[in-house]
Amino acid sequence: MSTPHHKHTADNEVLLQWLDEHLKALNLVDTMTQPNGFNRLGYTPEEAQSMAVFKRMAQALGLQVRRDQAGNLIARWEPTEGDARMKPAVATGSHVDTVKNGGGYDGVAGVLCALGAIKQLQDDGYAPSKPIEVICFASEESSRFGISTIGSKAMAGNLPVEEIQHVTDQEGTSIREAVETSGLSWEHIQEAERSSEDLSRFIELHIEQGTRIEEAGADFGVVTAIACPIRLKIQVEGKTAHTGTTPMDRRQDALVAVAPLISFISEQARALSEEHATPLVATASTLDLQPNAMTAVPGWVELGVDIRSVDDQLKEQMVALITQKCEQLEPAHHVRMKIDTLVHNPSVRLSTDVADRLKAQGEALGYKPYVLESGAGHDAMNMAHKWPSSMLFIPCEDGLSHHPEEHASLEDLNMGAQIIAAYLRQETSDRT
Amino acid sequence: MSTPHHKHTADNEVLLQWLDEHLKALNLVDTMTQPNGFNRLGYTPEEAQSMAVFKRMAQALGLQVRRDQAGNLIARWEPTEGDARMKPAVATGSHVDTVKNGGGYDGVAGVLCALGAIKQLQDDGYAPSKPIEVICFASEESSRFGISTIGSKAMAGNLPVEEIQHVTDQEGTSIREAVETSGLSWEHIQEAERSSEDLSRFIELHIEQGTRIEEAGADFGVVTAIACPIRLKIQVEGKTAHTGTTPMDRRQDALVAVAPLISFISEQARALSEEHATPLVATASTLDLQPNAMTAVPGWVELGVDIRSVDDQLKEQMVALITQKCEQLEPAHHVRMKIDTLVHNPSVRLSTDVADRLKAQGEALGYKPYVLESGAGHDAMNMAHKWPSSMLFIPCEDGLSHHPEEHASLEDLNMGAQIIAAYLRQETSDRT
Repeated sequence: MSTPHHKHTADNEVLLQWLDEHLKALNLVDTMTQPNGFNRLGYTPEEAQSMAVFKRMAQALGLQVRRDQAGNLIARWEPTEGDARMKPAVATGSHVDTVKNGGGYDGVAGVLCALGAIKQLQDDGYAPSKPIEVICFASEESSRFGISTIGSKAMAGNLPVEEIQHVTDQEGTSIREAVETSGLSWEHIQEAERSSEDLSRFIELHIEQGTRIEEAGADFGVVTAIACPIRLKIQVEGKTAHTGTTPMDRRQDALVAVAPLISFISEQARALSEEHATPLVATASTLDLQPNAMTAVPGWVELGVDIRSVDDQLKEQMVALITQKCEQLEPAHHVRMKIDTLVHNPSVRLSTDVADRLKAQGEALGYKPYVLESGAGHDAMNMAHKWPSSMLFIPCEDGLSHHPEEHASLEDLNMGAQIIAAYLRQETSDRT
Repeated sequence: MSTPHHKHTADNEVLLQWLDEHLKALNLVDTMTQPNGFNRLGYTPEEAQSMAVFKRMAQALGLQVRRDQAGNLIARWEPTEGDARMKPAVATGSHVDTVKNGGGYDGVAGVLCALGAIKQLQDDGYAPSKPIEVICFASEESSRFGISTIGSKAMAGNLPVEEIQHVTDQEGTSIREAVETSGLSWEHIQEAERSSEDLSRFIELHIEQGTRIEEAGADFGVVTAIACPIRLKIQVEGKTAHTGTTPMDRRQDALVAVAPLISFISEQARALSEEHATPLVATASTLDLQPNAMTAVPGWVELGVDIRSVDDQLKEQMVALITQKCEQLEPAHHVRMKIDTLVHNPSVRLSTDVADRLKAQGEALGYKPYVLESGAGHDAMNMAHKWPSSMLFIPCEDGLSHHPEEHASLEDLNMGAQIIAAYLRQETSDRT
């Protein structure tokens, strides 16, 4: 099965070329080689420009495109029969915004392959017996406002409007202002919420952002759960002192106190991952130091810790281990440690039913599946709260993402489009 | 000897009161309780104001005061005999500038006790047979320009004028501009250098900035050497990655790589200090992290390390141990480590002859001496390059310095003044 028989048919050559052209179009470039990467932050003119390309692409395929109150674009392929139009739609999609200096595949691959699947179905002369939607979500990345997946949160009725309206970006623009500058109304953003009857299923294709598929010798990934983080802020209070005149045994050095904790977090995450079926990752990712001066023994440290696993109990176990370690380090280093929980999001289980269908469709096309969980958050995690949802991962080179050199091959994009097409065909054929 | 018999004589009561008044005058305050501490950075109007008080105090004692080309004030007690005036002077002194939010004793104690000693000798009716000088050095602290002991470097002919002239403070004022704004000429600052025949000896009283004297059950310290630092910058290059999607065993985490080094530096400094007669201190005092973002595995760390001992070989041994440790950590954590030496100053041996005399004079007055080295730099380290020099330490509360609550008792300031007086008397009496 390592050389899928669908990769080099004449049909695929047509779609490969279509994918290549439209990949660049969605990225607003003539070549994917961009040393500084792609810059389309959420609710900016750059994102809007890429969304306008999406709209034109969908319209060229005969889809009806509307923009909802959160700025999501919904492209709909209506069945020819009137009754069928009343049925819940099968939806797929992703986003086109990027992080700063990001890659051209994170998000774009999902909307591109979704539209590519529509093209394939149309080229095959297929007529769906239920509506199909391709959704381009607004502002998925958290890099502008520190808040991720704004469009899909709004669609799933899960956007904390009051809480976030005054959050600002680095230039001081509030999220409310950014949304309104995009021609939307903050007062009405929650009206983007859709009823559970509007959709039957949601699937999202995304680049893996890792190398597990390749390491497993597989072709594509089917995602069963999305790991959401627990984030801790650990403050260490020691005592600032003179580096020259303070003997080693009289110090309350906050950095020396926290160093074993950094090692511990890494070692324990590794150990827990080996002991359990589900992996856990934990990262001491931020560190701020006071006074941070050459002649001063560090008196204060703040450490940020990001803990992720689809197994929420495992995350809790990691927090308990960190708490115990801090209790040991406090007396040993004569410091005080204070742990605050910044984020505590339970992980999201995706639909095993939808995942099984994606897996089966991919296998039927000759591709080898690998079942895994997602370490990063995606729009699908919000959609999963309301509609049976799953994700399809395609490999990306060296697992690199959020980086100018982020890359997925046209062959893998084609594979993704073909699997989505097969899935949509199954979900919307007369028999269902 | 724990209750020296000189502490409560009537003479001392007069000097105690004089010290109390002039301590506040030099600090430009009515009370030493200052919650925000003292702010007299080098070559600022605040330092100049305190120096003007020094000048008036010295003139009130009949001393001739001149300002040299580096802004140092030299207050001279001339012998009555003309021939005696040609002899090299015995000098003592310190500085009046402070760090930001500093204490009122670091520096001030040295010039205060020096003038107090002159007053004591005059009250005793003493007439020196050699000139005595009290020097108030300019800009001793490194906190404004990152360059310490500017005035004493100039006096000892050791100021790297070309190299430092464009160094700026946080407001962007260069050291050259600051010196010229103080009414001096940068072109002529090196003319502050004095010939070796101008002085015979130099002593400096300073607060200990530690607690070793008290812990030894002694009254005062006699300093045999000044520990100067080796400072390293260690850059760790790993690879930035997504905290959610990068498995633990595929990371090149620069912070996890450097954590064991931070622990190692502290542990090894402790071990070397226990193994050797001379202590060593080593501090990982600065740490900068990139990208320092909650969802990013740290890709880059820069660690600043300050290593001090009066035993230069011990410092070198510490550097060798750190280098070895880095070589072990690099392959273990898949990172690259680069060590740069920022500062490599050999430590300064002080005059054992002068130290022995200070010790003997203190003991004769009934005070218990403790022989130690200085972990911090002082003006005496520059003077020692040209003239036999030593230092006298008086205790300070809890070893606290560079802090608003820095404190030395009036009794200890009086002890200091009495020991300086006795030393000056010995060095300038007819018999010598």
